[in-house]
Amino acid sequence: MCKIAIQGVEGAYSYEAMLQKYGEVSYKCHETFDGVFEAVETGVSELGILPIENSSTGSITAVYDLLNHYDVKIVGETTLRITHNLMASTPVDIKEIKTVYSHQQGFDQCQSFFRKHEHLNAIPYKNTALSAQKVSLEGDSTQAAVASALAAKEFGLYIIEENINDQINNFTRFIVISKNAIRDSEANKISFQSVIDHTPGTLYKMLSCFETEKINLMKIESRPIRNKPWEYIFYIDFEGNLENESTLRALDHIKHYSNAFKMLGNYRKGEA
Amino acid sequence: MCKIAIQGVEGAYSYEAMLQKYGEVSYKCHETFDGVFEAVETGVSELGILPIENSSTGSITAVYDLLNHYDVKIVGETTLRITHNLMASTPVDIKEIKTVYSHQQGFDQCQSFFRKHEHLNAIPYKNTALSAQKVSLEGDSTQAAVASALAAKEFGLYIIEENINDQINNFTRFIVISKNAIRDSEANKISFQSVIDHTPGTLYKMLSCFETEKINLMKIESRPIRNKPWEYIFYIDFEGNLENESTLRALDHIKHYSNAFKMLGNYRKGEA
Repeated sequence: MCKIAIQGVEGAYSYEAMLQKYGEVSYKCHETFDGVFEAVETGVSELGILPIENSSTGSITAVYDLLNHYDVKIVGETTLRITHNLMASTPVDIKEIKTVYSHQQGFDQCQSFFRKHEHLNAIPYKNTALSAQKVSLEGDSTQAAVASALAAKEFGLYIIEENINDQINNFTRFIVISKNAIRDSEANKISFQSVIDHTPGTLYKMLSCFETEKINLMKIESRPIRNKPWEYIFYIDFEGNLENESTLRALDHIKHYSNAFKMLGNYRKGEA
Repeated sequence: MCKIAIQGVEGAYSYEAMLQKYGEVSYKCHETFDGVFEAVETGVSELGILPIENSSTGSITAVYDLLNHYDVKIVGETTLRITHNLMASTPVDIKEIKTVYSHQQGFDQCQSFFRKHEHLNAIPYKNTALSAQKVSLEGDSTQAAVASALAAKEFGLYIIEENINDQINNFTRFIVISKNAIRDSEANKISFQSVIDHTPGTLYKMLSCFETEKINLMKIESRPIRNKPWEYIFYIDFEGNLENESTLRALDHIKHYSNAFKMLGNYRKGEA
């Protein structure tokens, strides 16, 4: 059994998040987010690390959808500062670069840079680190990638321009998943999903427990139910611990208003 | 001045939505969503049509972000049934196809199909119709696209397998934007955006007016504020008309709790 499953390759932001949280550890890279969930659900890996939200571009909705599909729990989180760089196989002038590969989210986080350098043709690719790998393998000096400094190092690329993201404060929050929930008396964050009646006022009534119990609601994300057009699964994060009375009362209230309810985990908030 | 601005090319789902709502009309295709917003804001086009939500894969977040950026109003909406098809430049057997191009959302809506045909290498491209155009131009019989039947017709492609989306009921909701708001006594839907204090309970308090005024809250979408990590702009749709007393009371209440408020439009709901 290996310790950690991540999506991408060495040099990916998931890989960097893993190093930040666990240091040197056994790990396996998977091509897709699905692969990470499957490795954890089937016990091939003890833990999986997955991006769930970026501070500039929002939720990684594919990961929310997979939380519904797989039987795993959230047991932790970590927040990574994301710094994008333009990198190429030789130290060329930016004017000579024609094609740039990156994950679409990478481009979304560097819009000003691409508006400033209009001659660059941005082509979305599987992920940032694989873009760096592609540019390295093809060795064409008119190609570049947008990825992390770690990816440049990993694939022997030259950084042509560093820190090209629109926002200096650009962070991605990663969740840690495991087959089984943990019990941690210092856990201070709870995630759950709920499907409620498609009738006016139900969401509001469900949320009233956060007011009654003076609980901090941290995030609501809604995702479509695939076979029921315009109906939603709500994913909610709030501050709490399952050993706490007010947390338990709030959850009882929420379950009362839910047609389907799934606890996703009680874990420690990542450091900002 | 042309009547309608859309993103994509002839055969794109936006093009189909335009035909469904307006029939034969003057239009201009833009490469990006930005281009559509700009054409409307600057008066080059009277109206723009943009996808805002798909019933299987959720919100088109890029369009939400542009609603914040540009000074335009929502004046209508229309819902289009989306049927994806696998198409190629010659009537080949599916086994001979190696590479498939489409918009990432196209792939996301056809996951079962791609799981069943594991030999197909799905490569994300700019949009579905441009994928069809690319396959048509390159004329390589190992390439295919996932796009609409209209795109197949437009680019002279053969449909190899039709209706490959996971959900038969797969719809995309499109909004119609204009430089100026309309006054329509039969308008029954309101969209606005709001930024509220980043303190516990504020969202809940803001939403209380929907309960008090017995108003149907249709949708909440939250999008990050780019330069303020983990703070959000809320985009809310509800049933109402600006000539109605309870609607106006609800809006007063919402403005009271908003640090920033922007009315996005009062318009008629699209037919389901």
